[in-house]
Amino acid sequence: MSSHTPLPMGSTIGILGGGQLGRMLALAAARLGMKTHIYCPDEASPAFDVTPNKTVAAYADEAALAAFAASVDVITYEFENVPAHTAEFLSSLKPLRPGANALAVSQDRLAEKAFLSINRIPVAPFAAITDLDRLEAELEELGAPAVLKTTRLGYDGKGQKIVHNMEDAALAWELLSPKPLVLEAFIAFEREISVIVARGLDGAVAAFEPAENVHRNHILKTSTVPADIKGKTAARAIEIAGEIVTALDYVGVLGVEFFVLEGGKLLVNEIAPRVHNSGHWTEAVAITDQFEQHIRAIAGWPLGDPTRLADVVMENLIGDEIDAIPGGLGVASRPHAYGKAETRKGRKMGHINRITTKKRAK
Amino acid sequence: MSSHTPLPMGSTIGILGGGQLGRMLALAAARLGMKTHIYCPDEASPAFDVTPNKTVAAYADEAALAAFAASVDVITYEFENVPAHTAEFLSSLKPLRPGANALAVSQDRLAEKAFLSINRIPVAPFAAITDLDRLEAELEELGAPAVLKTTRLGYDGKGQKIVHNMEDAALAWELLSPKPLVLEAFIAFEREISVIVARGLDGAVAAFEPAENVHRNHILKTSTVPADIKGKTAARAIEIAGEIVTALDYVGVLGVEFFVLEGGKLLVNEIAPRVHNSGHWTEAVAITDQFEQHIRAIAGWPLGDPTRLADVVMENLIGDEIDAIPGGLGVASRPHAYGKAETRKGRKMGHINRITTKKRAK
Repeated sequence: MSSHTPLPMGSTIGILGGGQLGRMLALAAARLGMKTHIYCPDEASPAFDVTPNKTVAAYADEAALAAFAASVDVITYEFENVPAHTAEFLSSLKPLRPGANALAVSQDRLAEKAFLSINRIPVAPFAAITDLDRLEAELEELGAPAVLKTTRLGYDGKGQKIVHNMEDAALAWELLSPKPLVLEAFIAFEREISVIVARGLDGAVAAFEPAENVHRNHILKTSTVPADIKGKTAARAIEIAGEIVTALDYVGVLGVEFFVLEGGKLLVNEIAPRVHNSGHWTEAVAITDQFEQHIRAIAGWPLGDPTRLADVVMENLIGDEIDAIPGGLGVASRPHAYGKAETRKGRKMGHINRITTKKRAK
Repeated sequence: MSSHTPLPMGSTIGILGGGQLGRMLALAAARLGMKTHIYCPDEASPAFDVTPNKTVAAYADEAALAAFAASVDVITYEFENVPAHTAEFLSSLKPLRPGANALAVSQDRLAEKAFLSINRIPVAPFAAITDLDRLEAELEELGAPAVLKTTRLGYDGKGQKIVHNMEDAALAWELLSPKPLVLEAFIAFEREISVIVARGLDGAVAAFEPAENVHRNHILKTSTVPADIKGKTAARAIEIAGEIVTALDYVGVLGVEFFVLEGGKLLVNEIAPRVHNSGHWTEAVAITDQFEQHIRAIAGWPLGDPTRLADVVMENLIGDEIDAIPGGLGVASRPHAYGKAETRKGRKMGHINRITTKKRAK
């Protein structure tokens, strides 16, 4: 089968990672008549509850990876920190979509910023920091405050410190690892938005409208659509997202987070080569949601229609906020619980989409 | 636990029947953080692809039924022909929702018509037919043409014949079984509509808007919402649906099919104690879809909001019509494939929802 032939219905999608994103990808795959196989080292993975096919093994276990690859038709992942060797090994056996280069770029903050800069995508000023002398020089250059970050494995605010002076910076240098680090100018943004964009195997690109994101304790709390931005800012964000997936020769859904500055100027904060928390609103009000869009793309199917049918606010349910669901959440709301066995503080347990426009008058 | 306490998230919903309705119920249950266990005699059941928990056994297998009941928190079903003994046996072990009386009424066309008539719900004139003499007398009484039907196991036009005279009727009497039969007046209706209604464990009732249904070869082909009927006809259909679930002391989703006569008069054609093909449109454009609504009801949760966000036409994909899905279905369409291994003529393989209104202008 040519790599551009669409996978037939009844094919099996292999998914690395058994969290809520893998679970929602599996549910979307089922709606398209696809089977799924989840690979995750954690026996208690919530995605294991929505498919009969699972592998519980380490990401370095080549025998398990080989058996997994043999049982599926295409492989994808729910998280960007798939080890490079795992990605390379699986790629040699079955199509891995998005490809290993998307992982390489997004796993390393410096590689990501370099990639974006080379492609003339606007990012916050940054510098690679390899030692304290360099840190001092760059802090002077970029100006304080600035943000010192690890290049790898950062998420939900982990692996970064705001530094106001060289004393702060030296302390942060000691605390953060692994080295090297990256120093970024602190951006006084007006708001944060994100665009969920998809690119098909045929190169077609489709983006959802930008969502406006609010974080609490460094964790996404709400995504509101439409975002409170000008039409031309929204159009530019969508354009940039398209440029990124095209430059990466990307297949699948990718999330792009932006800072919106005064006057509407956009800087890309981060990209994630996967379905994205800030795209969960699509489940309730888009004709095609981000999960189905991702499955369509990696299966070589035409992309679906991202048109939005109503205004919406997606709210993450964190820790015991999930307990609100069974008791009722009022009208115009659509909950999603991830089926996690254990409720923990700071853990994403579910989300709720509140539809903020009703149907049109007749 | 009191029978009125809501089931906690993480509970297991037992589903009898592994077809597309069971599969879609399982997908909806997952979105609410519920686990599922599918019971079906057919090893190739499509619902087995969306849960790790299955039992392949006959509906009369008490050991298998008992083990199934022990592994779940509530039991429901995707089809009304659950054998009475199976329903009774399971009811003695775990809550069966909807209850056995809903099955008893809907399994037998005579019992159903008697139930509806007693509750002053309008139905087509009918008579029980136990022998040829009775058939002749009733055909004279009701007038030709009329429809002779089996009382049990009829679906998709099976088990019924239109009769124009006593010669037709005698032939149909020989062909149809089991006896007794029911003779119904032939209704010259203007259109067919259906209402999907839900009743919670607390007695609350919520209905979706009526869909207008078109059949082809006795199989549902399209459901269009809104139906081309007057507002007061829609309101009356919803009212009747509510009267039915309340009279049945029903818990769950129930489908009510109506004939709409000239002038808007309504007759109930049939009820189905389950999620219903003509409610598949809710998946694409209702805030809560019929599958989630059913799970909410049987779990003792508050019912969700049935508000519709857009106009829609649901089309069943029958036989090889399913092949349209991977190639693309144009904009504003949302497909659902049931994952059936074998495509057969006349078999429901999937459906597609076409959204016929776009989002509101800003």
